[in-house]
Amino acid sequence: MGGVVVQTIERADPAIVKALGACGVATVHEAQGRKGLLAAYMRPIYSGARLGASAVTISAPPGDNWMVHVAIEQVKEGDILVLAPTSPCEDGYFGDLLATSMRARGGVGLIIDAGVRDVRDLTAMTFPVWSKAVCAQGTVKETVGSVNIPVVCANALVNPGDIIVADDDGVCVVRREEAEEVLKKALDREAKEEDKRARLAAGELGLDIYGMRARLAEKGLTYV
Amino acid sequence: MGGVVVQTIERADPAIVKALGACGVATVHEAQGRKGLLAAYMRPIYSGARLGASAVTISAPPGDNWMVHVAIEQVKEGDILVLAPTSPCEDGYFGDLLATSMRARGGVGLIIDAGVRDVRDLTAMTFPVWSKAVCAQGTVKETVGSVNIPVVCANALVNPGDIIVADDDGVCVVRREEAEEVLKKALDREAKEEDKRARLAAGELGLDIYGMRARLAEKGLTYV
Amino acid sequence: MGGVVVQTIERADPAIVKALGACGVATVHEAQGRKGLLAAYMRPIYSGARLGASAVTISAPPGDNWMVHVAIEQVKEGDILVLAPTSPCEDGYFGDLLATSMRARGGVGLIIDAGVRDVRDLTAMTFPVWSKAVCAQGTVKETVGSVNIPVVCANALVNPGDIIVADDDGVCVVRREEAEEVLKKALDREAKEEDKRARLAAGELGLDIYGMRARLAEKGLTYV
Amino acid sequence: MGGVVVQTIERADPAIVKALGACGVATVHEAQGRKGLLAAYMRPIYSGARLGASAVTISAPPGDNWMVHVAIEQVKEGDILVLAPTSPCEDGYFGDLLATSMRARGGVGLIIDAGVRDVRDLTAMTFPVWSKAVCAQGTVKETVGSVNIPVVCANALVNPGDIIVADDDGVCVVRREEAEEVLKKALDREAKEEDKRARLAAGELGLDIYGMRARLAEKGLTYV
Amino acid sequence: MGGVVVQTIERADPAIVKALGACGVATVHEAQGRKGLLAAYMRPIYSGARLGASAVTISAPPGDNWMVHVAIEQVKEGDILVLAPTSPCEDGYFGDLLATSMRARGGVGLIIDAGVRDVRDLTAMTFPVWSKAVCAQGTVKETVGSVNIPVVCANALVNPGDIIVADDDGVCVVRREEAEEVLKKALDREAKEEDKRARLAAGELGLDIYGMRARLAEKGLTYV
Amino acid sequence: MGGVVVQTIERADPAIVKALGACGVATVHEAQGRKGLLAAYMRPIYSGARLGASAVTISAPPGDNWMVHVAIEQVKEGDILVLAPTSPCEDGYFGDLLATSMRARGGVGLIIDAGVRDVRDLTAMTFPVWSKAVCAQGTVKETVGSVNIPVVCANALVNPGDIIVADDDGVCVVRREEAEEVLKKALDREAKEEDKRARLAAGELGLDIYGMRARLAEKGLTYV
Repeated sequence: MGGVVVQTIERADPAIVKALGACGVATVHEAQGRKGLLAAYMRPIYSGARLGASAVTISAPPGDNWMVHVAIEQVKEGDILVLAPTSPCEDGYFGDLLATSMRARGGVGLIIDAGVRDVRDLTAMTFPVWSKAVCAQGTVKETVGSVNIPVVCANALVNPGDIIVADDDGVCVVRREEAEEVLKKALDREAKEEDKRARLAAGELGLDIYGMRARLAEKGLTYV
Repeated sequence: MGGVVVQTIERADPAIVKALGACGVATVHEAQGRKGLLAAYMRPIYSGARLGASAVTISAPPGDNWMVHVAIEQVKEGDILVLAPTSPCEDGYFGDLLATSMRARGGVGLIIDAGVRDVRDLTAMTFPVWSKAVCAQGTVKETVGSVNIPVVCANALVNPGDIIVADDDGVCVVRREEAEEVLKKALDREAKEEDKRARLAAGELGLDIYGMRARLAEKGLTYV
Repeated sequence: MGGVVVQTIERADPAIVKALGACGVATVHEAQGRKGLLAAYMRPIYSGARLGASAVTISAPPGDNWMVHVAIEQVKEGDILVLAPTSPCEDGYFGDLLATSMRARGGVGLIIDAGVRDVRDLTAMTFPVWSKAVCAQGTVKETVGSVNIPVVCANALVNPGDIIVADDDGVCVVRREEAEEVLKKALDREAKEEDKRARLAAGELGLDIYGMRARLAEKGLTYV
Repeated sequence: MGGVVVQTIERADPAIVKALGACGVATVHEAQGRKGLLAAYMRPIYSGARLGASAVTISAPPGDNWMVHVAIEQVKEGDILVLAPTSPCEDGYFGDLLATSMRARGGVGLIIDAGVRDVRDLTAMTFPVWSKAVCAQGTVKETVGSVNIPVVCANALVNPGDIIVADDDGVCVVRREEAEEVLKKALDREAKEEDKRARLAAGELGLDIYGMRARLAEKGLTYV
Repeated sequence: MGGVVVQTIERADPAIVKALGACGVATVHEAQGRKGLLAAYMRPIYSGARLGASAVTISAPPGDNWMVHVAIEQVKEGDILVLAPTSPCEDGYFGDLLATSMRARGGVGLIIDAGVRDVRDLTAMTFPVWSKAVCAQGTVKETVGSVNIPVVCANALVNPGDIIVADDDGVCVVRREEAEEVLKKALDREAKEEDKRARLAAGELGLDIYGMRARLAEKGLTYV
Repeated sequence: MGGVVVQTIERADPAIVKALGACGVATVHEAQGRKGLLAAYMRPIYSGARLGASAVTISAPPGDNWMVHVAIEQVKEGDILVLAPTSPCEDGYFGDLLATSMRARGGVGLIIDAGVRDVRDLTAMTFPVWSKAVCAQGTVKETVGSVNIPVVCANALVNPGDIIVADDDGVCVVRREEAEEVLKKALDREAKEEDKRARLAAGELGLDIYGMRARLAEKGLTYV
C-alpha cells in the first residue's frame, strides 16, 4: 500500500486567492452557497490570523508525520498544508522546525485535523495553524501516506489546489474552478453588507430592512 | 406550531443588574446557593468581558436565526439575548451585523447555546458573546420560534427578565425576584473574602482560618 | 475510608526542575522517550506560561476541594499542585483565594483534571493553571481524600515529587529519579535542533537533512 | 444550604400516564409541539423498555446519592425517579439494592443525568433505567440536596408530578397540566399514521400523500 | 440556493454489491487499501445486521428531513439512503413511516450522520440503520437540499451509486468503479484468513506465521 | 526507543482471580475502597460477559498492533490482554484472528483503550472485549512498543499480573498483592447486601435501615 506524491497541481490566480482570504470565512462560505466549511472543532492556535492560500494536501497515518516532510518539497509560494489523518488522531504532527521549513519554501500555514505542538514558538513566528488539538505527542516516520490527493479533512473534501480561507471563525475550502466566481459573489456580499450595517447601526430593524413581518405573520408568529 | 413573542417583560432594577455583573459569576453563583450556572462549555469569544444584563430569551429551531431579528425589536437598554436552540446545533446564528443592530437598540451581548461567527469583528467591537461554538455556518429564516418564553439554555432554566451574569468563568442566571437578595449576599461575600485574602497572603493556612483540623481528624484523615 | 497525607516527599534539585521547565513540554517529552504527557484536554487558562515544578499530588472526591487546603500546608517553594478527582468532574475546585494561599507558601501553579474558577483574577495574578475546564461551580468540604500519594491525572501517572513541565503545548510529567538524565537529553536535543533550524530556514529540506529519500522509495512511495 | 423535601405533589390520572407511555416518545413529543425531549445522550440500559410514569425529582450533589434514599420514601405506585446532579457527574448513584427498594414502593424506573451500576442485575429484574452513563463508581452520603423541586435534567425542565415517557428513542417530559390534551393529540396522531403507513406500504410516495411537489418546485428544487 | 435531484445514477452489478456486503466491513476496508471507513460514531440501531447496497445520497439542512421524501422516489431495489446534514445535527430525520416507504420501494436501509427515531419499530421491522444518534426530535420541511450529489458523510466521501457495506463494525464505502476489484481482493483475503485461522487455533503464533521475530529484533525489541 | 517484553510476571492465585470476577465490578470496586475503575467509556461489545483475569499489559503506538502478536506469546491460561495506546486512538487493533490465537493460548479476553473490530465474530465466539470504540480501521506493524510494563489504561494504572474484573458495569483493576484481602472484603459485602436486599424488598426504607434520619436533619434537610 505505497503512497503517491502528485508533483504537479494547478493553483488559482494568487490575486484571487489573496482576495478570498481578505473576505474572510463567513463571507466566502455564504458566497458559495453555504458549503465548504470544515468542522467547527478546527480552531486557530492564536487569534487574529486571516489568510487565503492554495492547498497542498496530505493523507497521513495516525501518529506518523513522515509525509509532512515529503509535502513540504511540493510547497510553492502561497501554499498551505492540509493534513487529514487516515483515522482520528490528536498527536502533534507539526512544530516550529517544520514551520521554519515551510516558511523557507514560501508556505504560509497549516490546516490539520489532528494536533500541533510548539504553539508558543509558532505564535512568536506568527505562523498560523488551525488544528483539532494542541498536543506535544511526538510522531514516527514509519509508514508512507500520500501527498496532493483529494482528502476529507474535518468532514470537508479538499482537493490539491483548492483555496483555503481561514480566520478566527474557522476554515472554509473553495474549489479552484469556482474561485473567481465565489470571489465576485463575496465582494458583492460585502458591498451590500455595508449599506445594511449603516442602517442597522442607525437603529433600523432587520425585520423592516428585510421585510420580514408579513411572512412571520403568515407562518403563525403571534405577539402577546 | 406558530411561535409566540411576549412583548412585555419585567426587568430588575438596572443598578442591581449592573452591580451583580461587577460581582462576577463565581461570587454570584455562591451567593445564591450554588445554583444557576450554565454548562461549562459556554465560553467567551474573547477574554476579559464581564457583565450583568437582563435576559431577552429566544427559543429557535436548529439552523434558523429568524427569531434573532424578532427578538432584537424587544431589546431595551441593558438587555442581553439568550438563545436556546430546540435541538443541539452549532451553526453561526449571529454575527457582526446583528451585533450592530443589538448595540443600536441598547443591547449589550449574547448568550447562545449554539454557534457565533464574525468573532474577529465582534472582538474589535468589544461586543461580548458566550457561546457553545464558534462556527461560520449560515442559518436560514424559514421556521418560527418564540421570544421571551422560559427556555432551558445550556442546562439552565432562564426566564425572560432574569439577570445574566457572565465573565471569563462562564455564565450564571439569577431569578429576577431574587436579584436584590442575591446582590446583598454577594456583596457580603466579597467583603468577607477581603479579610481572608489578606490572611492567606500573609501565609496563614485555610486549615487554621476555617478551623478544619478537628473535623478532618474526625473524618479519618491520617498524617504519615 | 479515611485518607492519608504523606508529609515527607523527596524533590529533585531545584536547578534541574527549573531547567526542565525552560526546555518546554515538547522537548522534554521527546527527551524522555515520548512518555509522560497528560491528556491533550489539559489547557492553560492563559497563553505564555511556562514552568518546571515539583508535584504535590491530591486525590480528591468529585465536587469536594477540602484536600486542596490540606495539600497547601505541604507545599514548599517551587511546588505545584496536581489534582486528580476520583471520578470525572469539572467543578471549580480552585480560585483566587487558594492561589493567594499557594503563592504565600511558595507554590507556583496548579494542574487539575477538573475545573478552575476566578480565571480573570488568576490571570491578573499570573498564577498559571492547566485544567480540564473553566467552571464556577462551587465545591464542598465533606469527604476526605489523600495528599502525596501516586495519582493518575488526565491519563498519566504522577508521583509526589515528580517534575511537572507545562507550557502552551500542555503538561508533561518527569520521574524524579530520571530528571537529571532527561534534562541532559533535552539540552542535547535543543542543541541539535539549532543546527537543523538554521538549515531548514535556509531552504534545505528535511528529506535531505534526514536522508529520507531512499527509505521512502523502499517503502513504496511513488512520485507522479 | 440545607435541602428541601416536598412531600405532597400532584400527579396526573394514572390511566392517562399509562396511555402516554404506550404512545411512545416520538409520538408524544410530536403531539405536544416538539418540546420536552431530554438530551439524546440519555440511553436505556437495555432495549425494549417503554413506560409512562409520574416524576419524583431529585437534585443531588455530584457523587452523592443520599437524596435517592430520601426520595424513595416519597415514591408512590407508578412513580419514576428523575435525578439531576448539580454539576456534571457520571458516578453510579443507583444499583440493584435501590431498585429493589423502589420496586417495593411501587416505583417503576429511573431517569438519571449521571451514571447507574449493577446493570446486569437491573436488566435481570427488568427495572428500566435511562442514564447518561453506566459506571460502577460509588457515591457518598455527605451532602443534602432536594426532592420534588423543579430540576433541569439533561437540558429539559422537569417538575415533580410531570409525566415521563421513555422508550428506546429516549425520554420525554409532559407537563402534568397538559397531559390529557397531549394524550388526545397523540392518539389522534397515531390514528392518522395508520392510514399513511398503509398507503406508504403500498408504494405510494410521501411526495404525493403530503402534496409536496408544488412547494418543492416553488422553493427551487430542480430535477436533472 | 435551490437544490438539485439527480435522477439517473449508475449502480454496480447487484451480485457484486451483495457479495461485498457478505464480506463485511473489516475485510472490505482492508481489501481496498484501508480507505473508505465512515467515522466510528456511526453505530447500528440493533446488532447483527449486515448488508451491501447502492448509495442514494442526500444533502439535507440541519433539522429538515424534506429531502428524505424526495430521495425515496429515486430509490431502486437494493438501494440504501446516505444522509449527510449540512451542519452537525442529531435530530430524528427518519422513523418507521419512512422505513415503510423505503421498503415498499425496495430500499434496504439508512446511513445517517444525524439521528433516527422509532428504533423499536425499526428493529421489529428489521430495517437496519447506522446513525450518529438515536433521537426523537422531530424535523421540519422548510428548506430544500439535494439528492444524488457527492456528500461527505461522517468524514467520508460518498458518491451516488457507490457501494455501502455495513455491519456491527460500522460502515464502509466502496467506489462504484472499484467494486469488482475490491470484491476480488476481499474474497482473496477471506480465503487466506481461513488458513491462518486454523493455524492460530492450533496454537501457532502470529510471530511465527508472519515471520516477525527478526524484524522486531532489528527494530530494537528486547526480551527481559 | 526500542521496546521491552517482560517475560516473567507474577500472577495471583487462579481461584482468587476467578472469585473476584464472580463478585463483579461494583462490589470489587467498593471492597477495595472505591479505587481502580477504568473510565466509564470502556464498554463491553456484548452484554452479559463477566470475568476475572490476570493482566498481560501492552503499551502500543497509535494505529500499530504489532505488540499484540508479541504479547500473545506471553499469555498463560486465564490471562487477559490490557492494551493502552501511547496516544489516543480508536483504530481496530484486534479482531477474530487474534481472538482465535488468544483463545488457543488460554487467553480469556481483551481490555483496550482503543478500538476493536470483527465484533460480530467475537460475539459469536463469546470472546469478551471491553473497548473505547468499535472500529474497523486497520493497523500497521511498524513501530515497537512494550509488553508487561505498567500502563495507564483509560485513566487507571494497570501493572502486569494485576487482576482485571469486568462485567456490564465496566472494568476494575485490583492490585495483585491486595487480591486476597479485596476478595475477602467483597464476599463480606455480598453477604451483608443479602440481608439488606431482603429488608428493602419487604418495603423497609434505606432511611431506616441505615439510620439516616437524624444526620439528615442535622445537615439541614427540611420536609415541607
